[in-house]
Amino acid sequence: MNYSMLVYILGSVIKIEGIFLALPSITAVIYQEKCLWAFLITMISCLAIGIGLTWKKPSNMAFYSKEGFLAVSLSWVFLSIFGCIPFVISGEISSFTDALFETISGFTTTGASILSDVEALSKSMLFWRSFTHWIGGMGVLVFILTILPASGGHHMYLMKAESPGPSVSKLVPRVKQTARILYSIYFVMTVIEIVLLLAGGMQLFDAVTLSMGTAGTGGFGVLNDSVGSYTHYMRNVITIFMILFGVNFNVYYLLMCKKWKQAFRVEEVRTYLGIILFSIVVITFNVRSFFPSIGEAFQQAAFQVGSVITTTGYSTVDFGQWPQLSQSILVLLMFVGACAGSTGGGIKVSRILIMVKSIKRELHTMAHARMRMKIKMDDHVVEQETLRSIYVFFICWLVVFAGSMLLVSVDNFDFTTNFTAVAATLNNIGPGLSHVGPSGNFGDFSLFSKYVLMFDMLVGRLEIFPMIALFHPGIWRRQ
Amino acid sequence: MNYSMLVYILGSVIKIEGIFLALPSITAVIYQEKCLWAFLITMISCLAIGIGLTWKKPSNMAFYSKEGFLAVSLSWVFLSIFGCIPFVISGEISSFTDALFETISGFTTTGASILSDVEALSKSMLFWRSFTHWIGGMGVLVFILTILPASGGHHMYLMKAESPGPSVSKLVPRVKQTARILYSIYFVMTVIEIVLLLAGGMQLFDAVTLSMGTAGTGGFGVLNDSVGSYTHYMRNVITIFMILFGVNFNVYYLLMCKKWKQAFRVEEVRTYLGIILFSIVVITFNVRSFFPSIGEAFQQAAFQVGSVITTTGYSTVDFGQWPQLSQSILVLLMFVGACAGSTGGGIKVSRILIMVKSIKRELHTMAHARMRMKIKMDDHVVEQETLRSIYVFFICWLVVFAGSMLLVSVDNFDFTTNFTAVAATLNNIGPGLSHVGPSGNFGDFSLFSKYVLMFDMLVGRLEIFPMIALFHPGIWRRQ
Repeated sequence: MNYSMLVYILGSVIKIEGIFLALPSITAVIYQEKCLWAFLITMISCLAIGIGLTWKKPSNMAFYSKEGFLAVSLSWVFLSIFGCIPFVISGEISSFTDALFETISGFTTTGASILSDVEALSKSMLFWRSFTHWIGGMGVLVFILTILPASGGHHMYLMKAESPGPSVSKLVPRVKQTARILYSIYFVMTVIEIVLLLAGGMQLFDAVTLSMGTAGTGGFGVLNDSVGSYTHYMRNVITIFMILFGVNFNVYYLLMCKKWKQAFRVEEVRTYLGIILFSIVVITFNVRSFFPSIGEAFQQAAFQVGSVITTTGYSTVDFGQWPQLSQSILVLLMFVGACAGSTGGGIKVSRILIMVKSIKRELHTMAHARMRMKIKMDDHVVEQETLRSIYVFFICWLVVFAGSMLLVSVDNFDFTTNFTAVAATLNNIGPGLSHVGPSGNFGDFSLFSKYVLMFDMLVGRLEIFPMIALFHPGIWRRQ
Repeated sequence: MNYSMLVYILGSVIKIEGIFLALPSITAVIYQEKCLWAFLITMISCLAIGIGLTWKKPSNMAFYSKEGFLAVSLSWVFLSIFGCIPFVISGEISSFTDALFETISGFTTTGASILSDVEALSKSMLFWRSFTHWIGGMGVLVFILTILPASGGHHMYLMKAESPGPSVSKLVPRVKQTARILYSIYFVMTVIEIVLLLAGGMQLFDAVTLSMGTAGTGGFGVLNDSVGSYTHYMRNVITIFMILFGVNFNVYYLLMCKKWKQAFRVEEVRTYLGIILFSIVVITFNVRSFFPSIGEAFQQAAFQVGSVITTTGYSTVDFGQWPQLSQSILVLLMFVGACAGSTGGGIKVSRILIMVKSIKRELHTMAHARMRMKIKMDDHVVEQETLRSIYVFFICWLVVFAGSMLLVSVDNFDFTTNFTAVAATLNNIGPGLSHVGPSGNFGDFSLFSKYVLMFDMLVGRLEIFPMIALFHPGIWRRQ
């Protein structure tokens, strides 16, 4: 383990967080809120510590996969610890555990909240809360890659460890350039959403925070009823953008390069859109009687499907009241998740797709004993190594799921609450069903369970291995 | 596909079922029940059809893996269809669907019932119901292998397709001999349990039916409160035998051969016993306040753990009333299941063990980039092919699980009911929680859901691939 590089990267992350904190500080100035000092103190501390840690450039630049994993998991842990300080010292969320839960939920774009009254927070705190979604969505290390000098060879390992999906494809040969393109697309799409929401008459503050929450597929709102009280137009804009941010960003790059044909042929995205369409249609008919018109039922179904499959977690109605078929579909979508290389969570459509293909292969082998079929995605053969890593990912994921359910059940909530609380945090969705449904929150869990769920959120966002690496002694060994 | 062999094997199965039906007929004679005619008619039909189908020996003996899969799945389907006739024509379970559900539940050793009043059935019907557990536990094709002439090379494929676990190990070089040894151990252990129950003062009828239910890890009882009203001694005997029948039968063969050291070193069995002990201890403390003494709590915990992990499904108390931690542990054990090569269901301890080992390997690879660790079980390297088949098994299993939950949820029962109904049938346990808990039954489900759950029971018992093969056109092709 190359500790000097690790410290250097952690320093950079904390420094960047200090810079990011300027935005909520400005918000506090605009709204003349007295919690400004909380942001300023945190900002100065972050900058001082960050600059201190990055003062000396590491001499040993050796950086491999395991360094990548640890750098990413530690970065996210520290990012969250520093990020929760404004909530604690301002007293707006006075419990450290609750503030940390809220911050991790923000950065991991989960959107699970311990707050029962969101509107009691000051504007600048709400802004910071939503801004963490935006940072976490594309990834803080990916952001750092856009500004760090492109040397040392550690870029690809950091990008791999932080980006969701079974494999990372560089859009252009250089990682730095790839990171810049990704963040540009991300930024431009967020701005377009803000503009569209403003055009519909939404207030600037709401438009900005909701768009950041949509972009990161986070789910923190600024009103107690999430987005239930906005107009049809606004909800439809959010629906469309949730779904767009769940698409693999490679597609947008292909569109930018005018490679239309290639863009529309990406299997993962076609499957993703197919699942969405199918689910919306079934749910629309299933909840038809709950709404005055079929159009309204369709809009509500589309909103919930988009919100759940992209793991955003905004809600307009309490779908815990819907028929079980609709609920079951939504629970399944929680697990499917969005596309790899998007800002969404869950298992990811590409993994599901490859797993289904491996079942097909098994059946094929059964019928034609000696012929070994190859598994292909977008006309490329999926390598044995990728396949193995998907299987193991999936098994680890289930082990974490089962273990968490067991630990959380100590609090003695009902089965549905425990099951969906773990599902909602591990998949970075936000709300679950029953006690943690759209009209409930995570505040009633014990301290212990909250830490279990925080771990799950990080495991979900970083896709397991970086977080498990933290607990593996072999990884920490200097050589 | 070699259809003549397929017909021949199906004929043998139906013929054997005719012979098996002699036992409930004798029971009807002893208890002077008028449903005797129902058994006799079914018996004669089975013998006639069976003898007709096996009249001509097939000329083409070619028999491979795919023939094995189809032979097994079709055998089980026909076995169940013929097996449910006595219930229907006697009018004791007049609905064909319900009778089929009960029979499939019997043969697959699930023990899920659609009956709300078990005691209303006549003795001979109760006997037949429990006897199906005993036949299904070790497998009807394994039984046929003990008597069929040992030629044609189809033995191993049939054994493989019907026996639970990731791989089948022949105890002795010849399959026929292996099948005989297995059935002898099975028979002797069942007799020992009957004797011990009789020694405790249980009536012969109850002792025989309960022992057959324990041996097959089935779960059908003969009283409405399952085994709640028997004495402590009887329940403890059942507890111990449930756990013993969940052990890999290879261990008993090793013990018979006096290979003590080898027998006590089988990793799967050690893990299985470890999980049981750990679960019992935790649950005992968790439910301590529900019972007058810690001894009583321990006995109840041991009974439930044994019943659930071996997927037997007998119950003494409604554990749906226990604290969530205990319930969560029991739900997890439902999925773990018993050992491979036992009569129990579930995913099987050996599969879980190998999956956990593959996680360890992944972490090892992470820390030592270029070293590839081998996965070992009982000091043997697990082959890549076995590993792949375990992964694919697991994925298929989850796909069936998710799909079934979706289909069953159309009935609009609550999430816990749907989830545990599918878990209880797919793992061949019997009771779940909520509506299908120990004090409920499966009778309220719609026709459609009942067929879904029947499919799940067969999928669970035959470990997926034989049942999926039924729906794969490539497998049915003549060449």
